[in-house]
Amino acid sequence: MAQFRRVLVANRGEIAVRIIRACRQLGLETLAVFSSADRHSLHVQLADSALCIGPPAAQDSYLNIPALLTAARLGGADAVHPGYGFLAESPAFAEAVCRSGLTFIGPDAAVMARLGDKLCARQTMAGLGLPLIPGSDDAITSMEQAKHLAQKLGYPLIIKASAGGGGRGMKVVSGPTELEQALALTRAEAKAGFGNDSLYLERYLTTPRHIEFQLLCDGKAALCLGSRDCSAQRRHQKLIEEAPAPGLDAAESARISALCEQACVELGYCGVATFEFLYQDRQFFFIEVNTRIQVEHTVTEMVTGMDLLAWQLKLARGEPLPPRSALLPSGHAIECRINAEDPERQLPGTGTVTGLRLPGGPGIRWDSHLYPGYAIPSQYDSLVGKLIAWGEDRDQALSRLQQALAELDIKGIHNNITLQRRLLVSPELAQQMPDIHFVERLLETQ
Amino acid sequence: MAQFRRVLVANRGEIAVRIIRACRQLGLETLAVFSSADRHSLHVQLADSALCIGPPAAQDSYLNIPALLTAARLGGADAVHPGYGFLAESPAFAEAVCRSGLTFIGPDAAVMARLGDKLCARQTMAGLGLPLIPGSDDAITSMEQAKHLAQKLGYPLIIKASAGGGGRGMKVVSGPTELEQALALTRAEAKAGFGNDSLYLERYLTTPRHIEFQLLCDGKAALCLGSRDCSAQRRHQKLIEEAPAPGLDAAESARISALCEQACVELGYCGVATFEFLYQDRQFFFIEVNTRIQVEHTVTEMVTGMDLLAWQLKLARGEPLPPRSALLPSGHAIECRINAEDPERQLPGTGTVTGLRLPGGPGIRWDSHLYPGYAIPSQYDSLVGKLIAWGEDRDQALSRLQQALAELDIKGIHNNITLQRRLLVSPELAQQMPDIHFVERLLETQ
Repeated sequence: MAQFRRVLVANRGEIAVRIIRACRQLGLETLAVFSSADRHSLHVQLADSALCIGPPAAQDSYLNIPALLTAARLGGADAVHPGYGFLAESPAFAEAVCRSGLTFIGPDAAVMARLGDKLCARQTMAGLGLPLIPGSDDAITSMEQAKHLAQKLGYPLIIKASAGGGGRGMKVVSGPTELEQALALTRAEAKAGFGNDSLYLERYLTTPRHIEFQLLCDGKAALCLGSRDCSAQRRHQKLIEEAPAPGLDAAESARISALCEQACVELGYCGVATFEFLYQDRQFFFIEVNTRIQVEHTVTEMVTGMDLLAWQLKLARGEPLPPRSALLPSGHAIECRINAEDPERQLPGTGTVTGLRLPGGPGIRWDSHLYPGYAIPSQYDSLVGKLIAWGEDRDQALSRLQQALAELDIKGIHNNITLQRRLLVSPELAQQMPDIHFVERLLETQ
Repeated sequence: MAQFRRVLVANRGEIAVRIIRACRQLGLETLAVFSSADRHSLHVQLADSALCIGPPAAQDSYLNIPALLTAARLGGADAVHPGYGFLAESPAFAEAVCRSGLTFIGPDAAVMARLGDKLCARQTMAGLGLPLIPGSDDAITSMEQAKHLAQKLGYPLIIKASAGGGGRGMKVVSGPTELEQALALTRAEAKAGFGNDSLYLERYLTTPRHIEFQLLCDGKAALCLGSRDCSAQRRHQKLIEEAPAPGLDAAESARISALCEQACVELGYCGVATFEFLYQDRQFFFIEVNTRIQVEHTVTEMVTGMDLLAWQLKLARGEPLPPRSALLPSGHAIECRINAEDPERQLPGTGTVTGLRLPGGPGIRWDSHLYPGYAIPSQYDSLVGKLIAWGEDRDQALSRLQQALAELDIKGIHNNITLQRRLLVSPELAQQMPDIHFVERLLETQ
């Protein structure tokens, strides 16, 4: 299998730092790359060596495949870790890396392509037995057919215009008496709005949670490391994540995680993967597979004691999975994302970190590229730190995270610490992770 | 049992911060006290309220019992946590606290007094079956008796002047041929030096390790949370500590920890206790009991997942021990102490923290009162931080700690980070924790 000794870290920010730490653990050298806006970034300071790959715009630096390959050649790297975001899910990048004779730390480009296309992934996973949100496979042709299908799907359901999207051309129907009128209305709107009156029906999940399963696969076997709940989102941005997801139906959860493992084996998947689901009424509905490390891998690490980044590297060099018996999850972990942004006015935060008081003590972990004096560039993702607390149980983890958040103080940049504090003391969250509308609901009742 | 809601933290520095964090976890309010040199200390910032108790000199502030009791009254505290150092092992303080109607977070003053007197503690523990270093109980009266005793003790042994101490009036004897002359010489030196030629013999441990056991006791039952190795010392100052102590004789270790538990039960001990031993040739030799939380409690927390400071508080309010079955230690943890000092010239370090780059990531814990801009007063202990790494095994913990130390950067004050980096990459340490002469040996071969 592929051996390598010097890893190009094709990313920036906290995940670049995280990759460097994992490489060090395995005795691997690291080559950082940076845009000219990131010259003073922590990942550049921590890596064994570093090369500038372009101007601030990500398109010309972190997304610039030729520049990355040139850097790998000049810097003597023989492997590439893509992190998350940027090119992490680009089959073209994975392929280019391999064609250059380097090891890509991630799954095969063809598998990545197959799972990257959402429609294709849904069909693949449905074929492998994973449950999708029930709906009409084809367009509705008659009221009779619609009524029949609606009865089969149950209410509430949602009528979607085939040509719609982004929230347009949709109508939620709460019961059979509304169906006929709603169909007529949506059809008319669709015709007027998109010049296409083709409609389909889907079961509407009113209060789903976002649940995902972390998989580790060596191309032959797969191991599910447990669940995470990432329901606390705002505008599809995850804000709080925890492991394990509390209050799941245990039998159904075990069934789904076995199906995820089986799917990975069928695909010959090698690397880490995350299977994302909506969860409501004790049922899982598959959304998509992420073929790279997730921001929130940390909470799984805290409860399993495993280093997932190190496992990415080990799997890439052909090492087999750990035995299932080595997996002994313990306790509970919750992460909150610290973003440089003005959550009130919803603007990205830039500026220089003039003060940085970090929490510590038992169960507290901080993954970040911040340091006092660091000037945050405006071009990139707003994530500047991940604060994670482990506890013997969920209550302790939550209480520790609340306390750590109370201690955390970042001066000089707008950030979402105050928002996170509000979310974390919400009684709704204290019960168990609420549905995906939790954050918006809480902000409305401000 | 004693209920309390507001804890006076009778300490400063990292342990005051640690106590505040534990109190918060249990929903207890905190009252910090500070000398005028500590006005801007982190523990003052983090506590619910804070009172100045005197000028910089510890004698007039942190050791000033009337000032502390006045602060408790003024600040509405109903309990006192002494931390370590200062008054933590003062039976007089414990008694004064209780007489004032407050709860002292620690064992009973009488038990503390009994264990605080080292000679008394040794006799008590010998009576309870704990092994002491073999030696003559009384002064040597004749050469005949000395030879007989020496044969019984075995070589090497050490001749000690009863009136000696601090390294004076001692002589190591490596074999029987040296005994007669060494006795005569030491007797003459003792007579000349102390005006008292009374001598006694003790078995000499050439390469002992410092091993200790962490106990948790509720007055009726006791639970040993495992061992720690603290052999890496310099001038009797611990520098590196780990849990569990590697490579111990398992059966002997289990026997000793059971004896420690039994001793605590016999004493009706309530609180945390540490039993310290020298360990050589698979044998333990009792040194002393510490009746307060230790600096290095952190490594036990990392492998057990338990919050020992929270347990101190819970035991003080009469809660029973956790069941033995709840104790599931996992992995390995190593701590290194970060001191503000110039290890080359062996001078204490003061100054202002102008830069602070903290490590993070999986398994890393940082307990400290440092923050950027903090001015370190010159009056107190040099400990400014504890860097702790947990790993699935000792190798991983060590490797993570090495890496975290490489990332740790404190600017503006002299510190021992470079020394710690040297110690932690020593091949001797990589094998397993060496004996107590390790640090000096390593520094000599500089």
